[in-house]
Amino acid sequence: MKVRDYECDTQGIVNNANYLHYMEHTRHEFLESLGVSFLELQQQKIDPMVSRIEIQYKSPLTGSDLFSSRLNVTRKGVKLIFSQSIYREKDSQLCTKAEVDVIVLQNGKLTRGDYFDELLSRRKHP
Amino acid sequence: MKVRDYECDTQGIVNNANYLHYMEHTRHEFLESLGVSFLELQQQKIDPMVSRIEIQYKSPLTGSDLFSSRLNVTRKGVKLIFSQSIYREKDSQLCTKAEVDVIVLQNGKLTRGDYFDELLSRRKHP
Amino acid sequence: MKVRDYECDTQGIVNNANYLHYMEHTRHEFLESLGVSFLELQQQKIDPMVSRIEIQYKSPLTGSDLFSSRLNVTRKGVKLIFSQSIYREKDSQLCTKAEVDVIVLQNGKLTRGDYFDELLSRRKHP
Amino acid sequence: MKVRDYECDTQGIVNNANYLHYMEHTRHEFLESLGVSFLELQQQKIDPMVSRIEIQYKSPLTGSDLFSSRLNVTRKGVKLIFSQSIYREKDSQLCTKAEVDVIVLQNGKLTRGDYFDELLSRRKHP
Repeated sequence: MKVRDYECDTQGIVNNANYLHYMEHTRHEFLESLGVSFLELQQQKIDPMVSRIEIQYKSPLTGSDLFSSRLNVTRKGVKLIFSQSIYREKDSQLCTKAEVDVIVLQNGKLTRGDYFDELLSRRKHP
Repeated sequence: MKVRDYECDTQGIVNNANYLHYMEHTRHEFLESLGVSFLELQQQKIDPMVSRIEIQYKSPLTGSDLFSSRLNVTRKGVKLIFSQSIYREKDSQLCTKAEVDVIVLQNGKLTRGDYFDELLSRRKHP
Repeated sequence: MKVRDYECDTQGIVNNANYLHYMEHTRHEFLESLGVSFLELQQQKIDPMVSRIEIQYKSPLTGSDLFSSRLNVTRKGVKLIFSQSIYREKDSQLCTKAEVDVIVLQNGKLTRGDYFDELLSRRKHP
Repeated sequence: MKVRDYECDTQGIVNNANYLHYMEHTRHEFLESLGVSFLELQQQKIDPMVSRIEIQYKSPLTGSDLFSSRLNVTRKGVKLIFSQSIYREKDSQLCTKAEVDVIVLQNGKLTRGDYFDELLSRRKHP
């Protein structure tokens, strides 16, 4: 991905909230890679909700920087735990890393998380 | 209203797209002042959609500036035409002015606009 | 403060990243209440930077909700630790709470944090 | 480019202001293709400023849509006039088109626009 200049603030660096945008987009891209779109989930009344984020800012991205956004995910009870990180491309520097907990509501009720077992099993392994 | 620092970009001034946000919020506040919330409209399958905006940028707002956002509205056939302007408070300077055309879909179809006649008649006149 | 409809996403609730915007704005308002503007700090080459955020999402805000955004701050070595929370007005429900660590760079170098002792002493106590 | 879900609002479609973000990013990409970064311009005290936008919304983009963002530019006195359009990829439908007027300040003063003649001449023609 590439930083868009409007994502930077007056300090000339990407505003702290925008990293959450990048990470959310990465989670949705991950879902798509498993054959599920976020909008389809909503139409089925399946609502993934972020319940907690812990994010560390290590090194700021600035205008036009290219970066890669990575994730790993595990299930822990009713939660999906996403470990996410963003690396600047030009020097492979870690910019931010985060742990994002997601719960899933089905028709407004917390699911037991089984739903995602089948989904996560679709990930390709070597 | 007051500029929030994250709405400014690297030039230290409010990014051009954010004025559309201010103006949209002002239209929704106007609706609320007539007793209608945007979310309620959606639940009734009434979808106001912006069809055209012409906006002129006269003088930039910067971090923490207080400003007033004003609107006037007339109906013209199937369209509502909003004349909107944003004035900086400290020197009463005109910052942006815009004409925003809005059409209204009801169950996905263009309404004849009659819907809004009753609504607009609720405005208080001296 | 009041939720603006464009801050909500397709789930009809405020997007997770926007709470960071609300909280940043609250920190800057707090600074202003102490007589310091964020832009002035920048002009003096004093750059507060968020180094870590832990945020818990308890109950979502939705379009037009009124809310109050509160903070408390303590100094811990080179860090300022902001404890922030957002409460929905209509039912006094806690929506999100966060701990936000801020470090301060002066001419690009980490300050020892003394700078803020004088600043924080300006807070009014009963 | 691809729509990110957080760019959609409660109507499930891209919020009107975000098209200005896409178009700004496209202008900056165009600049980069000519060998100039927006940040470098700022460091040289050259500030391109949008002075007027007229944008027509024809067909909304929705979550995950792929789209192409195109521009053409001409100089007209002290202004650069960008003609921009956004096409949905899956059906080649025109989504928005806009005319964006840009002026250029150099050390805070309006330039005569000559600056951009050399720049625009770098465009590759067949």
